[in-house]
Amino acid sequence: MEFSDFGKKLTSRSGILLLMDDLGKPLRKGLKPYPLGGGNPARVREVETMYRNEMKKMMETDAFERIIGAYDSPQGRMSFIDSIVEYFNSRHGWNITKDNVAITNGSQSAMFYLFNLFSGSYGEEKKTLLFPLMPEYIGYADQGIEKNTFVSIPSKCTYYEDRTFKYSLDIDGVREYLKSHSEVGAICVSRPTNPSGNVLRTDEIAALSEIASEHKIPLMIDNAYGLPFPNIIFTEDSEPVWNENIILSMSLSKIGLPSIRTGIIIARKEVAGAIANINAIAALASGSMGQALAEDLIKTGKLTDMARDCVRPFYKKKAEMTEEWIRSAFADTEYFYHKIEGSIFCWLYLPRLSIPSKEFYARLKEKGVITVPGEYFFFGHEDQMRGLDYPHDHYNKTLRINYSGEDDLVRDGIKIIAETYKEFYS
Amino acid sequence: MEFSDFGKKLTSRSGILLLMDDLGKPLRKGLKPYPLGGGNPARVREVETMYRNEMKKMMETDAFERIIGAYDSPQGRMSFIDSIVEYFNSRHGWNITKDNVAITNGSQSAMFYLFNLFSGSYGEEKKTLLFPLMPEYIGYADQGIEKNTFVSIPSKCTYYEDRTFKYSLDIDGVREYLKSHSEVGAICVSRPTNPSGNVLRTDEIAALSEIASEHKIPLMIDNAYGLPFPNIIFTEDSEPVWNENIILSMSLSKIGLPSIRTGIIIARKEVAGAIANINAIAALASGSMGQALAEDLIKTGKLTDMARDCVRPFYKKKAEMTEEWIRSAFADTEYFYHKIEGSIFCWLYLPRLSIPSKEFYARLKEKGVITVPGEYFFFGHEDQMRGLDYPHDHYNKTLRINYSGEDDLVRDGIKIIAETYKEFYS
Repeated sequence: MEFSDFGKKLTSRSGILLLMDDLGKPLRKGLKPYPLGGGNPARVREVETMYRNEMKKMMETDAFERIIGAYDSPQGRMSFIDSIVEYFNSRHGWNITKDNVAITNGSQSAMFYLFNLFSGSYGEEKKTLLFPLMPEYIGYADQGIEKNTFVSIPSKCTYYEDRTFKYSLDIDGVREYLKSHSEVGAICVSRPTNPSGNVLRTDEIAALSEIASEHKIPLMIDNAYGLPFPNIIFTEDSEPVWNENIILSMSLSKIGLPSIRTGIIIARKEVAGAIANINAIAALASGSMGQALAEDLIKTGKLTDMARDCVRPFYKKKAEMTEEWIRSAFADTEYFYHKIEGSIFCWLYLPRLSIPSKEFYARLKEKGVITVPGEYFFFGHEDQMRGLDYPHDHYNKTLRINYSGEDDLVRDGIKIIAETYKEFYS
Repeated sequence: MEFSDFGKKLTSRSGILLLMDDLGKPLRKGLKPYPLGGGNPARVREVETMYRNEMKKMMETDAFERIIGAYDSPQGRMSFIDSIVEYFNSRHGWNITKDNVAITNGSQSAMFYLFNLFSGSYGEEKKTLLFPLMPEYIGYADQGIEKNTFVSIPSKCTYYEDRTFKYSLDIDGVREYLKSHSEVGAICVSRPTNPSGNVLRTDEIAALSEIASEHKIPLMIDNAYGLPFPNIIFTEDSEPVWNENIILSMSLSKIGLPSIRTGIIIARKEVAGAIANINAIAALASGSMGQALAEDLIKTGKLTDMARDCVRPFYKKKAEMTEEWIRSAFADTEYFYHKIEGSIFCWLYLPRLSIPSKEFYARLKEKGVITVPGEYFFFGHEDQMRGLDYPHDHYNKTLRINYSGEDDLVRDGIKIIAETYKEFYS
């Protein structure tokens, strides 16, 4: 049974599949699991109570029946879209209408639509999608339907004396690349960045937006961990940003509803309209339940209050504990970790690692510790496409740790990672 | 802002968008709406109560929180998949394992994956997807990512003295076509067929399955209205059918959960695995809520009992009333309708219509009656691709009516359709 090129491209063994396999399949029997892989958010009690109350309200009337029993339009649930519009216009002074909004079955689906809307074949031409801050989210790497349509610029890196580091845009590199590559169809960043926990500064976003405008291509910002919800962002210098040239992707996954699949796209109306159209053909309509649960919470500002008052402090505390555990476990080694400016991840750089991180990951897995090895987060460079290493020092010496699990498991998992690092220390 | 070929193909004005626009956008002010378009199922009280009880159970423990807060694997919710396997093996004597099952965000998404997995570019070659019983579901028409990959065989038609007709497979035509077209990558039918309400006989399915096997290509059967749930199927000669060469698509949409988006694929394990892989990349994971609501209902057989004892009789009665209303309203005209053997649609053929049904649809819409004109259900033939009519007598003289709405609205809507037919009578 042979698959089409589309099939071959989307079923080849990819990073996201490895990651998802780890989520779904049990470890060797008897092994205690330390689940620091995947992207599942933490269970935050106040958030759960908030949704439980919304569901209770639905169940008190026939709202439950009305919601489950009727398709929403492919653009989304109109009352939910209205509440998004009202919220951003009244709280952030934006000037959007419902034509600027489209809802999908999770933001992963939205990015799949968007990447293929702005890259791949344009008649005889072929356009690419530029990721200007590699490493980037593992889940993007295979989303291009056609081969070799993703390109990237390695991030720059500053090291600090406290064993942290921070990625920044090689903004001159981005400018230079675009000057000589008119085939770039769009630029995409996640902010906060998955996997590094980096938060692009407001001036970096402004520069990217300006460059994109100059080249008349859109700038996509994946805001799954960002403002105003879930607000897992610890830097002060950040604001929700949108303009006609930005395609902003948001999600309810990291504020308590990962399994209810609700992605929110805010974009100029031609783009939001295109997303709705593609959604009609590829999915008929998006699920209504997440939208129904969050509708009043967004309109009244409760969701963003919850994000600011509970979700952000919850992860902030976890991030601080994680830093302590790392400092303690890795004390007598050479190690660095990315400043945890946002997201639910800690990104470890182990410069003395004597084996590639893919192999290190396998050794950790044997001890029950699930992580995601760095290699998968570096993609979109021609050299890498020829099977060579990505041209970044961190390529095969990094590890993504999801720190949102139970404290004991994260702490002990980190200890085991440090011990294992010492076993494979050059 | 220019879109890629993928973007252009999936955002061009298509039938499914027209249909969805009608669902989402209000009519001219003051006009009474008769919503006989779209594919929304009826609200069946017993079905609603069943899901309400499941939700109550979830809310009595922390099951609610556990379900909303954790991603399932891209293949689906493992406990739900187990209950599917258990049900079909114990009740229908199948021999499937969990490797034969994959869950998507609705069966529309599953068909999008499947069509593009088995048609389009294969290196230098190009394969096609064959629809052997045109007219077929409007929602398929634009699902090919590449152009001109869908082909079809016009159905044969038998007329009866009671003003009904029935489509049947031109099985010789199918055989003939496949002999001279080795580029066909798969065959697809819906059963019951949307839009006609036809149910392919067991011997027709067997013949198709045999032909597909001979050519070593899969036969996809879209069972969204079929057995064992929702069981909106009124013929006796039908059985849930599966074998290693069949890809069976099922859905919870027509048994009460359209907006919760749950598609179920049963296929040989390479195909189910491919669907899970594509789902990981294009959607990360499928929504859990529909699976969680239906899990026990499937395992215990309650869902299929409900389908047989409530859903089927409910639609059967509606279908019979619809037939009466048609006979009465169209009495002094020349008209035919397809035998309502299943699905929630009545398919009208108006041989004396003096304008194309697309235009007739527009006239009806001016009077508040929303239907779907026939033209959109005929696709996949080279002639049609050159902008010519599809080679079937019914091409522009048919109308799909969703009869699942409120009785008064369906009855009066049909009256208005008959009156308007008389205005445009050749």
